[in-house]
Amino acid sequence: MRPFSALRGASAAIVIAIVGGASVVRGDGAQKPASPIYGVTIPDGYRKWELVAPALEHEPLNELRAVVGNQEAIDAYRAGSLPFPDGAVLVKLAWKHVQAPEFESALVPGAATTVQVMVKDSKKYAASGGWGFGRFIGGKPVDEAQHETCFACHESRVKARDYVFTRLAP
Amino acid sequence: MRPFSALRGASAAIVIAIVGGASVVRGDGAQKPASPIYGVTIPDGYRKWELVAPALEHEPLNELRAVVGNQEAIDAYRAGSLPFPDGAVLVKLAWKHVQAPEFESALVPGAATTVQVMVKDSKKYAASGGWGFGRFIGGKPVDEAQHETCFACHESRVKARDYVFTRLAP
Repeated sequence: MRPFSALRGASAAIVIAIVGGASVVRGDGAQKPASPIYGVTIPDGYRKWELVAPALEHEPLNELRAVVGNQEAIDAYRAGSLPFPDGAVLVKLAWKHVQAPEFESALVPGAATTVQVMVKDSKKYAASGGWGFGRFIGGKPVDEAQHETCFACHESRVKARDYVFTRLAP
Repeated sequence: MRPFSALRGASAAIVIAIVGGASVVRGDGAQKPASPIYGVTIPDGYRKWELVAPALEHEPLNELRAVVGNQEAIDAYRAGSLPFPDGAVLVKLAWKHVQAPEFESALVPGAATTVQVMVKDSKKYAASGGWGFGRFIGGKPVDEAQHETCFACHESRVKARDYVFTRLAP
């Protein structure tokens, strides 16, 4: 991707996501896999972001999950203001849940499963409530058919909450 | 507590925790409730700390939980090095779990229950594996009898892992 190494920022990312269909170029020239439809990538440093809330998914997923948010997202949560501002990003980490080895009554994270990303850009993603979606397994985006289900589900269930399921845990 | 307002840091906190039994004085002169036995307080800013892992507790607690750690703790986790260094602090947040209102198969946080703190100071807490413990409900420490159970349980189950149950989620 050297021809693109001088390109920077979101516009470059969009161009290349459209052209290449599956990756964007970071500032350092490295490629990041991007989601189909939306061109969303896994944000750098998200593992250090502030916790919004944990959750448990019953059958068939059997997962423990945790949603974290960047500062724009957290600020909006704390202010209780909707819609989320452009630039807000939410990331959901997920793991198969397993029996805690030293504590009978607890479930804890096992193998990581998916990383799911929502990026707010009210212009770029105007057709999907202002949100771009990305669902990744092992760092790679799942297919287009799966991405077509993201907004449909969020729209049908939580449109009134700016399409976001997760509430800030008290 | 003005007579103590010139005191700073851990030694001041210890003195006052012993004398007063239930509070320490912060640098700004405000009081913070401290745990019995250990004099541990809820650390400022912990809600922004990095996630170590979520967990679920079955009956009788029925809680979702999330452990977060300060930088010293997270660095030790990532390095895979035990024991944790002095200064490492872990905080466990806990909530009753409730049915997600918009998603049948998920449990999400309800009311907050306890905040539990572990502070590593190998000298100060030499008698309890180098860890001081604090268990708080509504910001106030629970009683001494409950605090007497902390180390006993951690020692019996996870002594080989520096007395820490929670592993860093992958």
